[in-house]
Amino acid sequence: MDTPPLPDTNLFAGLPSYPDPEAAEQFTTLLARPGIRVERIVSSGQASPPGFWYDQPQHEWVVLLRGNAGLAFADTPGLILTLNPGDAVTIAAHRRHRVEWTTQAETTVWLAIHYD
Amino acid sequence: MDTPPLPDTNLFAGLPSYPDPEAAEQFTTLLARPGIRVERIVSSGQASPPGFWYDQPQHEWVVLLRGNAGLAFADTPGLILTLNPGDAVTIAAHRRHRVEWTTQAETTVWLAIHYD
Repeated sequence: MDTPPLPDTNLFAGLPSYPDPEAAEQFTTLLARPGIRVERIVSSGQASPPGFWYDQPQHEWVVLLRGNAGLAFADTPGLILTLNPGDAVTIAAHRRHRVEWTTQAETTVWLAIHYD
Repeated sequence: MDTPPLPDTNLFAGLPSYPDPEAAEQFTTLLARPGIRVERIVSSGQASPPGFWYDQPQHEWVVLLRGNAGLAFADTPGLILTLNPGDAVTIAAHRRHRVEWTTQAETTVWLAIHYD
């Protein structure tokens, strides 16, 4: 009898067993093709370093799947975009942004699509 | 005082309040760019019609986010790929496949990335 086929991956597999802000965030490329890259990001209470801004050459469509996070944008100083599970946001290329916080109550899982 | 920014969308918003196999599946395009289309699919116990196979011109990377489903592929007859939350699978262009079943216990939410 044939073995049933298996999924390629599971987005919630291999997560840290508890949040650890001192550990590194995990970035895993799930799909890479010309002009598109799909990435899982796992956060454990980390935030972007003080003063650090992402300034990316590609557009990014990102959805938070588990946990909670706050995003800040350089063009809206003082405002934090709070993300709950299922929340998705498009970040245009070179729109400077940072992760202001991620929850320490559980592991936060993001799925990001980077595209030209 | 400025209004805090809001997410563009939430993948779990606007779901049917209970599964209904007689209703139509919902397909919502979340992002469309040359060579890439991101789509939310909401299933409520439906399956592909008998004898129907998807035969798509683009590749598809699809992740099941909520619920459960079974996928069948024409090239592995008799085998069903069971998908649980977080499970992702890549389906090459023109690889014939069908949704054999989706759970009727809850709403099933998929995120599909179609790409060249």
